Amino acid sequence: MSPKKNFYSDNVSGAAPEILQAIVAANAEDTAPYGADPWTERLTTRFTELFETPVDVYPVGTGTAANGLCASIVAAPYGGIYVSDAAHVHGSECGGAEFWSGGNARTVPLPTVDGKVAAADLARAVEDSGARSADVPPRAISLTQATEVSTVYTVAEVRSLAETAHARRLWVHMDGARFANAVARLGCTPAEASWKAGVDVLSFGATKNGALAAEAVVFFDRTLAETMRYRRRRGGHLYSKMRFLSAQLEAFVADDLWLRNARHANAMARRVRDGLAPIPGVRFRSPTEINFVLVALPEAVWDGLVAEGYSFSRRGAPSEGVIRIACAFDTRPEDVDALVATARKYASLSPEAERATPAMR
Amino acid sequence: MSPKKNFYSDNVSGAAPEILQAIVAANAEDTAPYGADPWTERLTTRFTELFETPVDVYPVGTGTAANGLCASIVAAPYGGIYVSDAAHVHGSECGGAEFWSGGNARTVPLPTVDGKVAAADLARAVEDSGARSADVPPRAISLTQATEVSTVYTVAEVRSLAETAHARRLWVHMDGARFANAVARLGCTPAEASWKAGVDVLSFGATKNGALAAEAVVFFDRTLAETMRYRRRRGGHLYSKMRFLSAQLEAFVADDLWLRNARHANAMARRVRDGLAPIPGVRFRSPTEINFVLVALPEAVWDGLVAEGYSFSRRGAPSEGVIRIACAFDTRPEDVDALVATARKYASLSPEAERATPAMR
Amino acid sequence: MSPKKNFYSDNVSGAAPEILQAIVAANAEDTAPYGADPWTERLTTRFTELFETPVDVYPVGTGTAANGLCASIVAAPYGGIYVSDAAHVHGSECGGAEFWSGGNARTVPLPTVDGKVAAADLARAVEDSGARSADVPPRAISLTQATEVSTVYTVAEVRSLAETAHARRLWVHMDGARFANAVARLGCTPAEASWKAGVDVLSFGATKNGALAAEAVVFFDRTLAETMRYRRRRGGHLYSKMRFLSAQLEAFVADDLWLRNARHANAMARRVRDGLAPIPGVRFRSPTEINFVLVALPEAVWDGLVAEGYSFSRRGAPSEGVIRIACAFDTRPEDVDALVATARKYASLSPEAERATPAMR
Amino acid sequence: MSPKKNFYSDNVSGAAPEILQAIVAANAEDTAPYGADPWTERLTTRFTELFETPVDVYPVGTGTAANGLCASIVAAPYGGIYVSDAAHVHGSECGGAEFWSGGNARTVPLPTVDGKVAAADLARAVEDSGARSADVPPRAISLTQATEVSTVYTVAEVRSLAETAHARRLWVHMDGARFANAVARLGCTPAEASWKAGVDVLSFGATKNGALAAEAVVFFDRTLAETMRYRRRRGGHLYSKMRFLSAQLEAFVADDLWLRNARHANAMARRVRDGLAPIPGVRFRSPTEINFVLVALPEAVWDGLVAEGYSFSRRGAPSEGVIRIACAFDTRPEDVDALVATARKYASLSPEAERATPAMR
Repeated sequence: MSPKKNFYSDNVSGAAPEILQAIVAANAEDTAPYGADPWTERLTTRFTELFETPVDVYPVGTGTAANGLCASIVAAPYGGIYVSDAAHVHGSECGGAEFWSGGNARTVPLPTVDGKVAAADLARAVEDSGARSADVPPRAISLTQATEVSTVYTVAEVRSLAETAHARRLWVHMDGARFANAVARLGCTPAEASWKAGVDVLSFGATKNGALAAEAVVFFDRTLAETMRYRRRRGGHLYSKMRFLSAQLEAFVADDLWLRNARHANAMARRVRDGLAPIPGVRFRSPTEINFVLVALPEAVWDGLVAEGYSFSRRGAPSEGVIRIACAFDTRPEDVDALVATARKYASLSPEAERATPAMR
Repeated sequence: MSPKKNFYSDNVSGAAPEILQAIVAANAEDTAPYGADPWTERLTTRFTELFETPVDVYPVGTGTAANGLCASIVAAPYGGIYVSDAAHVHGSECGGAEFWSGGNARTVPLPTVDGKVAAADLARAVEDSGARSADVPPRAISLTQATEVSTVYTVAEVRSLAETAHARRLWVHMDGARFANAVARLGCTPAEASWKAGVDVLSFGATKNGALAAEAVVFFDRTLAETMRYRRRRGGHLYSKMRFLSAQLEAFVADDLWLRNARHANAMARRVRDGLAPIPGVRFRSPTEINFVLVALPEAVWDGLVAEGYSFSRRGAPSEGVIRIACAFDTRPEDVDALVATARKYASLSPEAERATPAMR
Repeated sequence: MSPKKNFYSDNVSGAAPEILQAIVAANAEDTAPYGADPWTERLTTRFTELFETPVDVYPVGTGTAANGLCASIVAAPYGGIYVSDAAHVHGSECGGAEFWSGGNARTVPLPTVDGKVAAADLARAVEDSGARSADVPPRAISLTQATEVSTVYTVAEVRSLAETAHARRLWVHMDGARFANAVARLGCTPAEASWKAGVDVLSFGATKNGALAAEAVVFFDRTLAETMRYRRRRGGHLYSKMRFLSAQLEAFVADDLWLRNARHANAMARRVRDGLAPIPGVRFRSPTEINFVLVALPEAVWDGLVAEGYSFSRRGAPSEGVIRIACAFDTRPEDVDALVATARKYASLSPEAERATPAMR
Repeated sequence: MSPKKNFYSDNVSGAAPEILQAIVAANAEDTAPYGADPWTERLTTRFTELFETPVDVYPVGTGTAANGLCASIVAAPYGGIYVSDAAHVHGSECGGAEFWSGGNARTVPLPTVDGKVAAADLARAVEDSGARSADVPPRAISLTQATEVSTVYTVAEVRSLAETAHARRLWVHMDGARFANAVARLGCTPAEASWKAGVDVLSFGATKNGALAAEAVVFFDRTLAETMRYRRRRGGHLYSKMRFLSAQLEAFVADDLWLRNARHANAMARRVRDGLAPIPGVRFRSPTEINFVLVALPEAVWDGLVAEGYSFSRRGAPSEGVIRIACAFDTRPEDVDALVATARKYASLSPEAERATPAMR
């Protein structure tokens, strides 16, 4: 097997074998359509066990759908949703909050440090909004956990934000496209990372971490689920053969597959960082707490990697030259080692790089 | 293998083996996410060949998404979409047209005979609307092909409706959730059934006919596709691992799988009808031109079938007692024969049924 | 003063002197903007007295705004609103319900007799909808009182519809663009015509009956008003100099001006009908219970009236030749008599007309 | 006549005598409703003369409606509208852009100096957006002229912004709620202040400057007006007795009334500022270029003015203690002098104030 050279996204990987196997198994017999099947019905039990509290679970096909549906619900009947200025739901979903809510929701960006909103900034924003009766009223905060810059809110940080939010009558949504990576990093239980810290509704991601195409909206405050049924259907996320999504989710949380996958991907990103750190001129853009590394590479290193067939995604303004090196559940240590070796090879060819500033963090 | 007793929907079946195999094959290597993969890129060629004309193809996860996206496009900037009074897009998608368009589209039902709108009724409706400048202006017609009552518009009927529509500056959308069954019935080419007859954009269904979860929006008038990119993304139907949808669609149209599946399902429904027709008291609600039968059964027959574990879906007002018996790509002749034999068994036990009126058609 | 020849609409008239006077009076001093003025604050008291129950009152500029706001509220979070197939809110507001609700509301037309929905038809529609879980769920009925065809629901009819609606958990909205004409006709109190008969929220019209530009949304179920504040503001109907709308409404209901105006306009329409009825070939399209007459005139009469400078609006399909002759608060008996005399003049010139069928009702 | 003590808003005043007179005059005879009247038809000519170029003019009732309609048009089919972070359309219209567009528009705030966006910041924002294909694409900029902080974009500044915008295919909307005050300040022609500087569509304000309730949307790029007809109607701003809005607008621009009113109000604000400036501890928040003053007053002065019955509105965070002193067309010099004298009286009573810092600008 040739080494993995595509570090563009955790989505470049296919599905984990366990997931594919679950799909094949779900194909064996006929069943009721539109979610009235045993797989989907079992999900409630599975997720209730996983989160140690009764939940309502709704499978959907993509994270954008999960986030958009949640946005339309937490902002109802009308209002603003605080988000980080880097939030996927704010800048990477083509205005999904506005769309899913029919113009009743608006994302309101707050400043961040290392991709994380601070409770004090949230409190101040709510206070300021109080003086503007004609502005869109705040209704919720949406936290991305883990964040878009490879950091993770601590449980205490989530709790502090949630308390701040709830004290001001805001709902707390968590965009957990990489919830698995966050829980793996935190070493806590899923419950501690979510409802016990104050999360009301969670976009529970699976696709980035080994599913084929499946996410789930998990309602801890089940009153929020009241309108979900029709919202999901008209949005085209009530799949006729829903069992195939549910089977993925069931396999994903069975035997800790989701955490095993996430722990592995996180470790691979750590290995990338540790391998690149000694290279002169390498500057890391943020801590590497989950499965990807944001880094600015010396030009010779970047050019060399691209010449050898590696691919990454760019992040931020082009002038900053920051790339994201994303690891997945199926990234092997030898893939990382080959990447690092290649980077070092091109670094040594560049006297200019030797003179560059050392790693920022 | 036990006989199939679930005739509730064509969606009770799983995926066809060829489809599952394509998914497994697509899993073999890494690839670019969000549709920049070879499978998705090949789709344009595959569908251009299939339809004998250059098309733009956008995979989505469900028919409701396909229809909603099309509705938001053909009604833009604002307007009404004529539909049949039985149309899925009108009564079975929780107001999808209104939702996807942000309140800019409205479905406007027209009367039907055997589930089909007549060109003269369309012409009259447009004419009447001209006198009402403050009403929602008509912008499009959406035809369900095949229809919700197991009938098929002839190519001439589609052409006549499309000419009527185009002459009045209306777009023509075809909801082809069962387009395969229609083409199989018509015995024409996909091109003849669509753009050659005047269809501008098609919701091309695959899930009901053997896919796991994949549909495609096919633009024959490619200017209509201009806004599709962002509409699909914000609606949560730009899948990160899009290759898995594209691979399904590719396998679906390869080697005529889609038509073979459809022909088979159609034949099985015919077999159901022929088998039930002699039973006294059986009344068919509409012609059986595709893969399901709408029928009112004598009470004893209905009770008996249910007692033996058969399931069907109800159609129309409860008082009418009409059920839908749906066949799929994997319904076997022996499944149908067992169903018919069971029905006959209970019919003979019912002297009342003997006195009932003979089959209506 | 020349005779009024413009019977196109009750909106061709200007404002009643009392209304203009109130506007001038409201101009005398400075006051708080955006409705925090004494005129607006008094409205609650005025309307609470008028309706003999505590109400919330929100002035807006047009009936379309009033209806759209109400539609967005009664259909929330999402649903259908039953209307008559002739309803202004359905066919004359450019899809206002869909627009104001951001795609969450849809008007669902019911058949009518003389412009009125029957409770039995409402009950049947709700029952049928229960079998279609994927359809837009019914949430409300919107009655136009008086109707678009010059008829009036009796208090018993309103009560029956409201009871039918409430028993099925539907809200009851009344589009009262001509509520004054209806109350004048019924000879009951405003309370009896509205909340005592089960109306939850009323679009209370004034413009057609003598105001310059002012309508009010009157909430009898005040829980429905919760979101009105922001809905009205973002919709552009929170006027900075709101006192000028409120002053109109205050003058409108003071000293029974609204009822005096409506009684007069109704009487004038009756006078038109009585005057035209003897003319051979004249066919009335519906009863004349309020301030306009729907009638098909013999061609010679129509041509003659137009030639003499009269104007009317057409109603229904052009082939039917039905016109609306609308009277207003300022239509004088001599205006009507001149109209009738002119019609008779042309009728007598037309031997053909003499042979025509007599009046239909 | 008692001195004006209400400086809360330019909207606390009533209508100018010329405006009221025009309304009374428009009441004299019957006319076609819904804008097919001579007053409305004349507006096109009046505004074409005023702006020295053919325009399409649509009267509406409020500035929020004008801005919302424009937002829905310039953002179509979907996109972002750059605004100042203090823009009325962003923070004072309850999310009007999102509402009017059915979730297709989003306001995107840019930083400002003295309430004005700089062309360089606009250029940078557009450039940055180019790297984010999944973000809402920028479609327009909306400039508030004059601004929310009493400043005015110079013609060169508008031109520079418009050129920057057009070069990047953005539309240019001007929120001219106080366009009159801006033109009066600039001393240029209305044409120079708008389309000659690159403005495509203008919310032309009249209410704040002497109208009763009338604003106009003026399309310089008339292709933008294509959908305005239905957008305005369904939004409830097609008034049945439209002549009363048009008559206001006609009187407003006749004989330079609008500019005379604006010049006067601007001068009164200047007089306020000059009168307050010498008071120790008075700090002005921004330049005073139009008809209001943003100022932080010493506590004793503020308390004294309130005790004497004066009213103002607060601006910004409560801790800043900034108030807006707004003058209107009918503010008299003696009103200002009384205000200033009162302020000085309380200032002299406050030894603390004497020690305070001198005026900031």
